[in-house]
Amino acid sequence: MNSEDVPSSSADETALAKRVADEMYRRDQASRNLGMRLLQVGAGRCSLSMRVREDMLNGHGTCHGGFIFAVADSAFAFACNSRNHSTVAAGCTIDYVSPGRVGEVLEAHAQEVVLAGRTGVYDVTVRGEDGRTVAVFRGRSHRIRGEVLLIK
Amino acid sequence: MNSEDVPSSSADETALAKRVADEMYRRDQASRNLGMRLLQVGAGRCSLSMRVREDMLNGHGTCHGGFIFAVADSAFAFACNSRNHSTVAAGCTIDYVSPGRVGEVLEAHAQEVVLAGRTGVYDVTVRGEDGRTVAVFRGRSHRIRGEVLLIK
Amino acid sequence: MNSEDVPSSSADETALAKRVADEMYRRDQASRNLGMRLLQVGAGRCSLSMRVREDMLNGHGTCHGGFIFAVADSAFAFACNSRNHSTVAAGCTIDYVSPGRVGEVLEAHAQEVVLAGRTGVYDVTVRGEDGRTVAVFRGRSHRIRGEVLLIK
Amino acid sequence: MNSEDVPSSSADETALAKRVADEMYRRDQASRNLGMRLLQVGAGRCSLSMRVREDMLNGHGTCHGGFIFAVADSAFAFACNSRNHSTVAAGCTIDYVSPGRVGEVLEAHAQEVVLAGRTGVYDVTVRGEDGRTVAVFRGRSHRIRGEVLLIK
Repeated sequence: MNSEDVPSSSADETALAKRVADEMYRRDQASRNLGMRLLQVGAGRCSLSMRVREDMLNGHGTCHGGFIFAVADSAFAFACNSRNHSTVAAGCTIDYVSPGRVGEVLEAHAQEVVLAGRTGVYDVTVRGEDGRTVAVFRGRSHRIRGEVLLIK
Repeated sequence: MNSEDVPSSSADETALAKRVADEMYRRDQASRNLGMRLLQVGAGRCSLSMRVREDMLNGHGTCHGGFIFAVADSAFAFACNSRNHSTVAAGCTIDYVSPGRVGEVLEAHAQEVVLAGRTGVYDVTVRGEDGRTVAVFRGRSHRIRGEVLLIK
Repeated sequence: MNSEDVPSSSADETALAKRVADEMYRRDQASRNLGMRLLQVGAGRCSLSMRVREDMLNGHGTCHGGFIFAVADSAFAFACNSRNHSTVAAGCTIDYVSPGRVGEVLEAHAQEVVLAGRTGVYDVTVRGEDGRTVAVFRGRSHRIRGEVLLIK
Repeated sequence: MNSEDVPSSSADETALAKRVADEMYRRDQASRNLGMRLLQVGAGRCSLSMRVREDMLNGHGTCHGGFIFAVADSAFAFACNSRNHSTVAAGCTIDYVSPGRVGEVLEAHAQEVVLAGRTGVYDVTVRGEDGRTVAVFRGRSHRIRGEVLLIK
């Protein structure tokens, strides 16, 4: 990742990313119901948190992989739509590193790696409260028609 | 995938897979709370269903990718633990093909592709009610110490 | 994979797939120089072979992952172009199961899993001479403009 | 990626990484025959270059994906063995962003993302001569018994 690929966001870009994220979050029942909170957004990046609840535990008593994936996937979605171009996930990979524990607040940090034409690649790191890496996620995005927000 | 890699399960293997799955399901709050149902299990395979609920929708009004992932991930977990050796996910990939619609019952079919030493690869296809492919998932498993069920 | 997603190829489709593959192979110096041979092609599928040469060995004395990937990637390319629509790889995953040995002839069998609009997913299994699985590969394809062969 | 996960290498670590890489390169016919050159190594990281030769071209006249994969895979191998613990690839993903052109020198930069127990995740970016991203690669490593170099 170098500065040519991922310019840091200007104040205008950050303000737009914030408005888009607020609107996406408003419409996104799934992320809200899972208790996700927006921590930070900018052009091509987003950080979210989510507490591991009792009803998110699998048979091993640790966070079901689907919920670790979900918080990463939402951070990815907010990051890849942050320029207000409607964009969807094409495919994702996740590597689990350490289990998520009940009661713990996970943080997912998404960052654009490259954006070329209508295709982008985003990396998300999910961390536990002690800063350890819980999972690493990579998402491939595809830009479709339309905008998230109508801006006159 | 050929018959050397993935022998069809015997009656005993299917009975064991069923007992293991029942126990895993009993302990797995996440899968139960998401409304997943066990359709079929056998050695190295599992089918689950899950209805797409209102609270699973993302900002596009379609099923959040995290829940499509979750049903695939649970089917994978049941399949890779089906021989009663405790086994965890190391990493997964998902490719989204078609959105999941509200109210629709998704089915996830997991099948072992190869098992070599402590590592396995499992493919899961998630289908919609009309039989279309919603997503394809591939999981890599890693066998750890212990069994799911204590069997005298 | 069901019959809706992947119809078996008709005689015409198989003949077209064969002509396309012959033309692709003629243009593809890399596959030829690696000693790959076309074993079989059809609509959405292709089998290739490649012998593991001395100059393909890595520091462990086994086949460098890049060459195992290459034979899988070529089988994927032939399969996803088999309907004569120009199609490129968007992304791939490979899981290594067993090393490839010097002198051994590897076979790569590619099969379409799903084709939806301009996007397809293909699975490739790479096998050793004794039939064991050497690697499993999944490729995501993207159809672009144009045809491989000009057909009046 | 934070400093807890990936400490920067000390002078001793860098010297060891250099010795290990020299030895691996000496044994690795495949990387040598593909014209790869070691640019830089350190604990958990490695940069390699490779010129795209005529015999690496596919039917589109661009670098066959297998060779782009190979340079990424070699950089990954050198990075994950850089602490002198024998380590192999378990699985990899690659996303293609831009074609590699004939005559062009590609550079692959591998960096450890996380190392937890015997499992590591490494990201590799492959760049063209103009600095554009050609592909992004992620490898999952598994530490096995033994060392690369015998050190008294």
